[in-house]
Amino acid sequence: MVRKTHPEPGEPAAGNGILSRRILLEGALVAGATGAGLSCGSAEPLTVQPWMKVPGPGFVGYGQPSRFESKVVKVFPPPPSPAGVGASRTPLHLLEGMITPSGLHFERSHSGIPDIDPDQHRLVIHGLVRRPLEFTVEALSRYPMQSRIAFLECAGNSQALNAPQAQPLNVTAIHGLLGCSEWTGVRLSTLLDEAGVEPEARWVIAEGADAAAMSRSIPIAKAMDDALVCLYQNGERVRPSNGYPVRLLLPGFEGNMNVKWLRRLKLTAGPAMTKDETSKYTIVLKDEKAWQFVFPIEVKSFITRPSPGLALSGPGFYEISGLAWSGNGSIRQVEVSADGGQSWAPAALQGPILPKAPVRFRAAWQWNGGPAVLQSRATDDTGMVQPTRAQFADERGLRGVYHYNAIASWRIDEMGETSNVYA
Amino acid sequence: MVRKTHPEPGEPAAGNGILSRRILLEGALVAGATGAGLSCGSAEPLTVQPWMKVPGPGFVGYGQPSRFESKVVKVFPPPPSPAGVGASRTPLHLLEGMITPSGLHFERSHSGIPDIDPDQHRLVIHGLVRRPLEFTVEALSRYPMQSRIAFLECAGNSQALNAPQAQPLNVTAIHGLLGCSEWTGVRLSTLLDEAGVEPEARWVIAEGADAAAMSRSIPIAKAMDDALVCLYQNGERVRPSNGYPVRLLLPGFEGNMNVKWLRRLKLTAGPAMTKDETSKYTIVLKDEKAWQFVFPIEVKSFITRPSPGLALSGPGFYEISGLAWSGNGSIRQVEVSADGGQSWAPAALQGPILPKAPVRFRAAWQWNGGPAVLQSRATDDTGMVQPTRAQFADERGLRGVYHYNAIASWRIDEMGETSNVYA
Repeated sequence: MVRKTHPEPGEPAAGNGILSRRILLEGALVAGATGAGLSCGSAEPLTVQPWMKVPGPGFVGYGQPSRFESKVVKVFPPPPSPAGVGASRTPLHLLEGMITPSGLHFERSHSGIPDIDPDQHRLVIHGLVRRPLEFTVEALSRYPMQSRIAFLECAGNSQALNAPQAQPLNVTAIHGLLGCSEWTGVRLSTLLDEAGVEPEARWVIAEGADAAAMSRSIPIAKAMDDALVCLYQNGERVRPSNGYPVRLLLPGFEGNMNVKWLRRLKLTAGPAMTKDETSKYTIVLKDEKAWQFVFPIEVKSFITRPSPGLALSGPGFYEISGLAWSGNGSIRQVEVSADGGQSWAPAALQGPILPKAPVRFRAAWQWNGGPAVLQSRATDDTGMVQPTRAQFADERGLRGVYHYNAIASWRIDEMGETSNVYA
Repeated sequence: MVRKTHPEPGEPAAGNGILSRRILLEGALVAGATGAGLSCGSAEPLTVQPWMKVPGPGFVGYGQPSRFESKVVKVFPPPPSPAGVGASRTPLHLLEGMITPSGLHFERSHSGIPDIDPDQHRLVIHGLVRRPLEFTVEALSRYPMQSRIAFLECAGNSQALNAPQAQPLNVTAIHGLLGCSEWTGVRLSTLLDEAGVEPEARWVIAEGADAAAMSRSIPIAKAMDDALVCLYQNGERVRPSNGYPVRLLLPGFEGNMNVKWLRRLKLTAGPAMTKDETSKYTIVLKDEKAWQFVFPIEVKSFITRPSPGLALSGPGFYEISGLAWSGNGSIRQVEVSADGGQSWAPAALQGPILPKAPVRFRAAWQWNGGPAVLQSRATDDTGMVQPTRAQFADERGLRGVYHYNAIASWRIDEMGETSNVYA
């Protein structure tokens, strides 16, 4: 049930302590809402810490995070897992905002991270084109560029929620195959126009220069629409783990199609039926049939704070913070619930709200110290709404491992501990 | 002179080869515009490089740029300059898009970069408040947050263009004290509301926890408007060189007022008249008077490509790319000229166009191999237009070293070499 009234700031907007987002949007009454306090100790006299008594270290060419943040790292399986086969995860529970730092952007690799010399790398466009083309990285950098902020999500993200019983995992372990960067590159359509696409070409086979030669088939319509051949990520050259020196970006499409270390685009009449679109990355349904070539990531969201491992320190005010995104468009609304979906209130959405980019949502919550189940539910501008887990299971079953997008739930117990539950 | 007609893609929009931005906006006719080619060699057979023959290296916790990009670093004076006193510059000529990678964000430090333990750091709000407050970083992280993408520019950026003769410098040496991040933090107004600002408080003195105790006076109106007490930069905790663990963001105001390592906010009736608002960071005029407390960065732009050090390889198509921003609002228009300001055409602006954030602009240029002088001229949504250098000199003189925002010029010679000129 979504409340139709317009509560005053500080007043409940949904059950179990969800307050009006006007507190956040207008900055109103937060002092009141937060109560006597989050501040600590006496303000004066001010302490003079040791780092104020001597000049600090000097400049470095390429800066790094503080040594006190050494726990903020990507998470990946320890040996004996094969090095570089599998995925490393973005530590979402420790981040804020929309942009993912490039050093923490998740990666999914099929045969490690190739150490590519950009002067030796080539991108070839061939197959059903009038004029096959080969590009150096330098040549690509001569073309007109576009930038866009876009999410990337592995198709297999959140598959831990398919398990019959809720596992004791945190947000990074469950949802950490998600990242967002500002990508800059050349429109693929510009390059295809120059090559001259033959009328019978309906697909583009994109191949990476890793040892797996990771390959996927892309509909020509997507290639001619918003696909970008990217050279830059968050302002600098694309990182090796994300495809240096050339990565394909297919905004909104499942992660692995955004082929890294891009070396070849072959235009064909039909799809290539590579292993990563036949034995993997198809959506197995409950009747044991499967959907193939379902590319866009469906509307989705989750809460990063509070989340497992980030215990609440006692009753009082908390901001609920999370991410929402859709591969089909822009986020129109995110609702939050503190009572396991019995009542909902709209969250504040942090602009800019961009198509196929994540939106940070925030909600104000007064925790009364009792049990609570926090949920978020996103709606995109096509009208698609995140399903409940039961609805998702009813439609698709829970045997598949791709494109899981149901509402996720964190349970808060009376000690303030947060855990993954099905609700 | 701005052309009032609407030329077809590929047609001239201004003198000396500036083409219609519709080429960029619509992706039209670029193949034609670029001519026979930027592609190289024969597309087949494809080369199999050594990195495709063996699995690549595995995952790491915190990723780094490719080893082939080791030249992309901040630039700072070598010894015997005192370590950490002065500035390191963002290598803008090697970057694209709007976001600055945090590792390459310029810094201006007055006594090095303190190595602050976040558990020991405190932020105090005191002076003319009803209730002095002291915050731990943990306590600050409990408050509602906001994110915004914003530029930071040192007030002394581009002062090299005050020299009587144009110096042989590149874009980084001239304009490199500019960066842009997605910043996330607590609204300062939220904290001030909690402290309870006394009616006679008109200024806030912000002090950093570096050994210089860098301090600036901020009008209360700005503090209550859009000031943020930032904990996150581009998704992760603020970098040490940019103020870890707590930095003040005053969107649009000159860089040094965005006090790093923020330890104290004291509310006062008048400004503190610290050394950095009396002997420095005032704007010396030609009559030897000076403006004090002029805070917003005026509308400004420059071209990053082509620029000195990035030689053109021969006549043909080039994209002109640059950045424009204003501390007073949003960018409304950027015009480019290839004939030293005799004729202008509008550039394409890369969205999202956000207030007090840089905009990447791009223009299409067909270089005929002859001499050219490239310029950009930005207009913001308050109607302010970048002045010519002559207009700037006429109004303010060239004795000051702060807030230089005149139109900048790159000369291209017949060899394709680019240099800083006054035009």
